[in-house]
Amino acid sequence: MLLGNRLRSYFSNDRALHQSIRNVFGYYPGNISLFKLALRHKSATQKVINGLRLNNERLEYLGDAILSAVVADFLFKRFPYRNEGFLTEMRSKIVSRTSLNKLAMKLGLDKLISVGGERNKKGKSAGGDAFEAVVGAIYLDKGYEFTRKLLINRIINVHFDVEMLVEEEISFKSRVIEWAQKEKHELSFTVIGQSGEKHNNQYIIAAMVDGEIIAQANDYSIKGAEKLVAEKAWQIILSKQTAPDEMAG
Amino acid sequence: MLLGNRLRSYFSNDRALHQSIRNVFGYYPGNISLFKLALRHKSATQKVINGLRLNNERLEYLGDAILSAVVADFLFKRFPYRNEGFLTEMRSKIVSRTSLNKLAMKLGLDKLISVGGERNKKGKSAGGDAFEAVVGAIYLDKGYEFTRKLLINRIINVHFDVEMLVEEEISFKSRVIEWAQKEKHELSFTVIGQSGEKHNNQYIIAAMVDGEIIAQANDYSIKGAEKLVAEKAWQIILSKQTAPDEMAG
Repeated sequence: MLLGNRLRSYFSNDRALHQSIRNVFGYYPGNISLFKLALRHKSATQKVINGLRLNNERLEYLGDAILSAVVADFLFKRFPYRNEGFLTEMRSKIVSRTSLNKLAMKLGLDKLISVGGERNKKGKSAGGDAFEAVVGAIYLDKGYEFTRKLLINRIINVHFDVEMLVEEEISFKSRVIEWAQKEKHELSFTVIGQSGEKHNNQYIIAAMVDGEIIAQANDYSIKGAEKLVAEKAWQIILSKQTAPDEMAG
Repeated sequence: MLLGNRLRSYFSNDRALHQSIRNVFGYYPGNISLFKLALRHKSATQKVINGLRLNNERLEYLGDAILSAVVADFLFKRFPYRNEGFLTEMRSKIVSRTSLNKLAMKLGLDKLISVGGERNKKGKSAGGDAFEAVVGAIYLDKGYEFTRKLLINRIINVHFDVEMLVEEEISFKSRVIEWAQKEKHELSFTVIGQSGEKHNNQYIIAAMVDGEIIAQANDYSIKGAEKLVAEKAWQIILSKQTAPDEMAG
């Protein structure tokens, strides 16, 4: 009787997961064990086989790569006249940890994750990690083309406002880069020094046009300093133009 | 007559490229213009359409993502008992710029690249960039499954000695990580300070096991310091074990 109950409960758990995957992703999974693994957070690892902990980390690695490829393809076709810098930035925005965590919440995926002990043990990025792992599971279950269509039709087109991301994403840096390409100027963002010392170390970055510094800024990270200097450079470029609105096009 | 000559030369150039792609990748491309674009280095950019320079940079962006996905899948299936840290390091090794540049040379792809002006204008990584761009072209031409099989059968299995990469790649860091996971120790590599100043700035990194520093090292880059400290930590772990060979399991 005990075994009977366990079996029943085992199959009814599986049935519930089948239904949840159907609700979130629009199809009944073929190999349910892939999805169970995809939703097993590292804190819930029970089994270790050949030194490998059985949780969703390997599937997350796979799903991350598949998701990146699908989004790269989607953006490549959606923006035929945008350069690779723009495409790269747009992709980072879509697949960032923050973005995927929010997505997992919207999909209710975070409620399906198995964690060990208390629920809050799983940490902040468990949702995004699980989403990537589920993408890996769908890919192994149904292949690339199926996964690509599912991600575009049920995820990107439904949960991302791509036009709004474009607005946000036309960063000062990419505006400056596009301007330089269009006007055939040599442009570089170069670390020209560091200020402060030890824990206080800041990078000084210059925006150089045809070998001349047009703006500089400093920040604790290279990325931060670049963002600041790009904004300064863009203001300077604008101030020297008569029809600034046409330049970014 | 002039037009006739031009047309003839145009088609015979295309035929030569068709044949080259067949020789290198084993199939006659459907859409040859994708491959012409994939082999056009940025120094050879002639046309600009809607502010976009027509060269291989967009295809390189796409091909990079497709190549990463294919290699992730390949390694995931080839090493079912390796963790995601190992898979990530192995992939970096296969798709690194150095590795892809060498590959492009072996394939003779570097000789097919169009560059503007002198040939040496193209820079060191033009080969690897062009390889990625060609992967993007194959993907657009024939789809993911075709590209995946071609890359595995004609590139990875022929040009990479995966077993040798494994030997090289079982880095001290991954050995220490695997040991900690197996023995259930909390492990971290932490920046605990910086030495020197400005251009001489070095990072000091500690390997910490269950909150205690077991080794430390410094280097100009965080990555370099981690590598050094991982080697020291591994020696210390080994020296405390009786059967060291079994640990890396």
